Amino acid sequence: MGRTSDAKERLIETAAALMHARGVNDVGVQEICATAGVQKGSFYHFFKSKDDLAAAAIDKHWSDARNQFWRLAFGEDVAPLDRIRRFFQMAYFYFKQAHEEGTGISGCPFGNAALEMAAHNDAISEKVSLVFSDAASFFQKAIEDAARRGDISVQDPQQSAEALWAYYEGILVIAKARRDPEVIRRLGQDALHLLHAI
Amino acid sequence: MGRTSDAKERLIETAAALMHARGVNDVGVQEICATAGVQKGSFYHFFKSKDDLAAAAIDKHWSDARNQFWRLAFGEDVAPLDRIRRFFQMAYFYFKQAHEEGTGISGCPFGNAALEMAAHNDAISEKVSLVFSDAASFFQKAIEDAARRGDISVQDPQQSAEALWAYYEGILVIAKARRDPEVIRRLGQDALHLLHAI
Repeated sequence: MGRTSDAKERLIETAAALMHARGVNDVGVQEICATAGVQKGSFYHFFKSKDDLAAAAIDKHWSDARNQFWRLAFGEDVAPLDRIRRFFQMAYFYFKQAHEEGTGISGCPFGNAALEMAAHNDAISEKVSLVFSDAASFFQKAIEDAARRGDISVQDPQQSAEALWAYYEGILVIAKARRDPEVIRRLGQDALHLLHAI
Repeated sequence: MGRTSDAKERLIETAAALMHARGVNDVGVQEICATAGVQKGSFYHFFKSKDDLAAAAIDKHWSDARNQFWRLAFGEDVAPLDRIRRFFQMAYFYFKQAHEEGTGISGCPFGNAALEMAAHNDAISEKVSLVFSDAASFFQKAIEDAARRGDISVQDPQQSAEALWAYYEGILVIAKARRDPEVIRRLGQDALHLLHAI
């Protein structure tokens, strides 16, 4: 057993990893506690339920992804449309590496949670919707920057951003189903078509 | 209890409905048997495991959808690109109705199964990949017909078809997360951008 003081963090990290790999419903509280080295009594001190921990795991996934992957992809060191291209390329490299290392294509933790639970779990639906809005705002910023430079002409940047985000989520559905990271490379190339940009 | 002779069919239909609404992992064999009015002993006469039944449920979903929704949407009574438009419109009407009737937006049963299980279940990954290829072939036929008429110019009809299918899957991820059928109407309008058609 690790220190009690970081038990909550360990539960969240363990749940985030297990649930991303196998889904929320396939992972039990007992397994999470055993893997994290935390006693079940402590679990219920920190979390009301497994769903409560699942929501915390989504927060952690997004906080990590946002501060690393997303900030890097959408960094303003390159032209706005190149940031969108870089996002799709980075996603390809990320999942290609996971695939080659044998961890497989787990896909998007937020899309996974949405399809598994959003229809019948209010908290997960709200949580994932917030993440989706925040994610789409990265695309929207790049689209607005591109329009300001005259690179593209877009009627509704918010809708175009949502379209790109939907396309990305769908690409991951196909790549995960086929267990093939090349889907992300191949289809990612067409993403800017959604903006009439090419 | 219903007749034994149709017990297998009832198990498949019950599983298809329950798993579409709540996911495979959230539904147990006991619940499926109780809902279908079939004894657990009979279940294992027909199916090796719950996953085996899940694969049969996917077959049933696709067989039904293919023969009804898809054939109607892609019927050759309208111009090829209008078939694609009609597909997205029909999807909107379908999920809008489900939403208004309170059954909620369950999303695509194949996309759901892919995100929940494809990473660790070979049979589901193969099954869903076959459905995806068959679904994309409807888009591909319409794209090829449109290109033949000179309505669009597409380099790789198979890739464009896969892109449209991915976009559709992603739209359902967002709509399910947000519990909002208007997402399908709004983003569906942009689908043909992926073909440079508008």
